[in-house]
Amino acid sequence: MPVVWSDRCLLHEPREEILVGVPTPAAETPDRIERIRDALTGARFVEAEPHDDSALRAVHDEALLGYLASAWDEWAGAGLPDDPGQQRVVPYVFAHAALGTALEEPVAVWARPGYFAYDTMTLIGPGTWEAARAAVDAALTAADLVREGAAAAYACVRPPGHHACRGAFGGSCYLNNAACAAVALGPARAAVLDVDAHHGNGTEQVFRHTDDVVVGSVHVDPRAGWFPHFIAATGEGPGSKNVPLAPGSGDDEWLAAVRELTGWVREQRAEALIVSLGVDAAAEDPESPLQVTRGGFRETGALLGALGLPTVFVQEGGYHDAIGALVRETLLGFEGAR
Amino acid sequence: MPVVWSDRCLLHEPREEILVGVPTPAAETPDRIERIRDALTGARFVEAEPHDDSALRAVHDEALLGYLASAWDEWAGAGLPDDPGQQRVVPYVFAHAALGTALEEPVAVWARPGYFAYDTMTLIGPGTWEAARAAVDAALTAADLVREGAAAAYACVRPPGHHACRGAFGGSCYLNNAACAAVALGPARAAVLDVDAHHGNGTEQVFRHTDDVVVGSVHVDPRAGWFPHFIAATGEGPGSKNVPLAPGSGDDEWLAAVRELTGWVREQRAEALIVSLGVDAAAEDPESPLQVTRGGFRETGALLGALGLPTVFVQEGGYHDAIGALVRETLLGFEGAR
Repeated sequence: MPVVWSDRCLLHEPREEILVGVPTPAAETPDRIERIRDALTGARFVEAEPHDDSALRAVHDEALLGYLASAWDEWAGAGLPDDPGQQRVVPYVFAHAALGTALEEPVAVWARPGYFAYDTMTLIGPGTWEAARAAVDAALTAADLVREGAAAAYACVRPPGHHACRGAFGGSCYLNNAACAAVALGPARAAVLDVDAHHGNGTEQVFRHTDDVVVGSVHVDPRAGWFPHFIAATGEGPGSKNVPLAPGSGDDEWLAAVRELTGWVREQRAEALIVSLGVDAAAEDPESPLQVTRGGFRETGALLGALGLPTVFVQEGGYHDAIGALVRETLLGFEGAR
Repeated sequence: MPVVWSDRCLLHEPREEILVGVPTPAAETPDRIERIRDALTGARFVEAEPHDDSALRAVHDEALLGYLASAWDEWAGAGLPDDPGQQRVVPYVFAHAALGTALEEPVAVWARPGYFAYDTMTLIGPGTWEAARAAVDAALTAADLVREGAAAAYACVRPPGHHACRGAFGGSCYLNNAACAAVALGPARAAVLDVDAHHGNGTEQVFRHTDDVVVGSVHVDPRAGWFPHFIAATGEGPGSKNVPLAPGSGDDEWLAAVRELTGWVREQRAEALIVSLGVDAAAEDPESPLQVTRGGFRETGALLGALGLPTVFVQEGGYHDAIGALVRETLLGFEGAR
């Protein structure tokens, strides 16, 4: 299947993220997609095409888009940070739900990040907006290829997107690439299946009040203490289904969950599929306690392929050296099942 | 008037706060109240008495109280932080309003602080709970003195409280001491007047849906870029009144605002007064751009005293060397007007 690529996705270079106050080497680095690209030898690579903001505006609040586009310039223009070693926008005070649900956008440059960000690990540097916007262009280009007749297309992108909500960014995600692809496939009824090791909370939240796009996610259970940690006490929306797994779960539990989700997609009468393809459920990945094997990823691909739907793959997480091989296994499994 | 004191208020020792990711020397330090105490020579000092949690439970959610009481032990017990130089509980992922309004309390020790905290500057160390609880005891002891017939009493406490909301802490505040005093003065109809340089957003939020306790606040305008930065777009609650001032405002604007608030308290037919007494509106204070003079503080005290109400003073902010003199001026102004 065609692989959509943009060099601009490499422009976001988070050297550090701040975890419980401690600067820590960033996990979501540019070399991630280079490793995946290098594993997809022989694939047809397609350059991401620029797209207008229409899909993006259907997914995100205008205020968030405006902020992300100007955040770095605003920050640097204000002479921030005081610490010249830390060339990133970092929030310190947040639009916490306990402060009230309708809060005005703050004025001070140093207060504004926390109106839009929900953590201190998703920092903004000089190349962040261009890279995040390029990832959306790549996801939309993959959607174009599928609309034009390709059985499937793969957007090899970063920064990832599935933790980005309608009005806030976090979890190393800025713009929800998969959600944009789902909107772009309309009016076909799209299903997003998120096989990243972490709950696709952003995608779920974007489509929470609709079932025009349905969203399923398999992931390590946030209630067992894993990112994104926060779960809506009101349960899932009308068009979403979550299958949380216990830490330590391997191929058996994982594939049973994927089968449950593909069965649910069939029931939903979806006409197109977006796969949020994280490969961090792998046993060797440091960012999750799941234990999925290479064979498990191939079978995951086969189960997705058996749906027989026009399919856009969008890269999400995966943080170890072999992520390229696992993406390759998943795509081969998918193609073998068609 | 009697001055209520507890040595336990000194046990909270935040060496640093984290501002836009950068560890910065803490402003809200134990010596603040020692400086005030030393300026109140000749006053009658009264030791804070232990109180049960009934007022506290009327002000704060049970979950917040449970968290604050155990946060340090939970954190240290989990072997956090990784950085041994930073002996404090620091949040990194937050219950942001954009994630949803009804969120479950998270499980992971490193995720839990951000369910209850709205910034990264209000850290929890080994003595934080005991000091915050002692400040509540002192405020309640001052309320007892007034209930027992004292015309007024002053709780010389820290950590301050007016930024602490019903369900979340922030702004160097953990427990809302003034709100507890207001509850303790019931069934008398209490008014809280907040003359700290920053908006008493926590106190306003605690009593947002009632006018049993009315809350007025004069402060530098958060819309001009000052803490607490976030303002409810829905406006004030039924029993609150805010008078925001432009940065640079001095005695004229300040005293006009205090007059406006004391007039409003009269209209509200309040039977008792709690003064959230910050002295950071002073020209020399580094934490606000207001320019109130020593004479302005004396006149502030006089305007408050002219209300003729049983009054509990509760210390809030003030971050420069002369804060003791300004508290003294305010209390002398108050007593001179009775």
